Amino acid sequence: MNPGEKRISSHVVYRGRILNLRVDHVELENSKRSYREVVEHAPAVGILAEDDEGRVILVKQFRYPAGEYLLEIPAGIIEPGERPVETASRELQEEIGFEPGEIREIMRFYTSPGFSNEELVIFHAKDLRVAEREPDDDEFISMEKVDIGSIETLLRNGGVRDAKTIAALHWLLSGRN
Amino acid sequence: MNPGEKRISSHVVYRGRILNLRVDHVELENSKRSYREVVEHAPAVGILAEDDEGRVILVKQFRYPAGEYLLEIPAGIIEPGERPVETASRELQEEIGFEPGEIREIMRFYTSPGFSNEELVIFHAKDLRVAEREPDDDEFISMEKVDIGSIETLLRNGGVRDAKTIAALHWLLSGRN
Repeated sequence: MNPGEKRISSHVVYRGRILNLRVDHVELENSKRSYREVVEHAPAVGILAEDDEGRVILVKQFRYPAGEYLLEIPAGIIEPGERPVETASRELQEEIGFEPGEIREIMRFYTSPGFSNEELVIFHAKDLRVAEREPDDDEFISMEKVDIGSIETLLRNGGVRDAKTIAALHWLLSGRN
Repeated sequence: MNPGEKRISSHVVYRGRILNLRVDHVELENSKRSYREVVEHAPAVGILAEDDEGRVILVKQFRYPAGEYLLEIPAGIIEPGERPVETASRELQEEIGFEPGEIREIMRFYTSPGFSNEELVIFHAKDLRVAEREPDDDEFISMEKVDIGSIETLLRNGGVRDAKTIAALHWLLSGRN
């Protein structure tokens, strides 16, 4: 196995609230030297929550970097010491007020492996039970329940513009669950 | 329509080769003030290229931020003045040496709307004709042709760990093309 690109040195440009930026000097696979800009971001989870009527629960919120409101599956950063499945259950309750009777991992991926180490673990949650909703301060989220026919329409019309949500919804439509 | 979050001021922390980082002070939807860290990244395309035998052409390359080799659909940044479909055709030729007889947009999304404005436009390319491959200097890419059964296995086994590739492959499997 080719060892890939080797780090020669690393320089932290910025340490922030949700991300850090570093610039690493590296040796490429042809032994030339170059540099790589890397956005460090904590791993996170997303939850495809399906109710007993087969509707998927999506949340709508303003996403400042995108400059618009986006329809997404509930998601959140994995806190230190948390297992991803615990984060998923916690976020489900905080964001939409449900506890899952059944939850399992369906996929995991890098969101932008060309410039970031952010990893997402996606869960499928079913058998939802109402729990007390506990939204974070300063989160302004509205909830939508979408049936399977509407999901197809949303995907066709560009009504969903978020990578994790598109991946999870196409997984559901592919019926390979 | 709620106006979302309003920019009060903006500070560029870093201007780089593939990304810029800025920190904006904003007014939230409850009129409180906060700040947002935003990674600016040029929009890009990805291409789900399917050959006449129904096999999908994937590329494998080392992704430094992820620290591993990833199997992905061919992709690349939209150059100034290029239409996304032109980028898609160009990248297809550069990375895997094919020209598409047929190409159409199937989805577009933000990869990480919580911290980046990066947008991806995904195309489905068919009727592939051999063209001269023109890899970029300093790109080390190997090519794999994967049949539909192997795609299912790869997705199940975690053999694909890239968001755009997972979204595109589940789109293909869902048969809603």
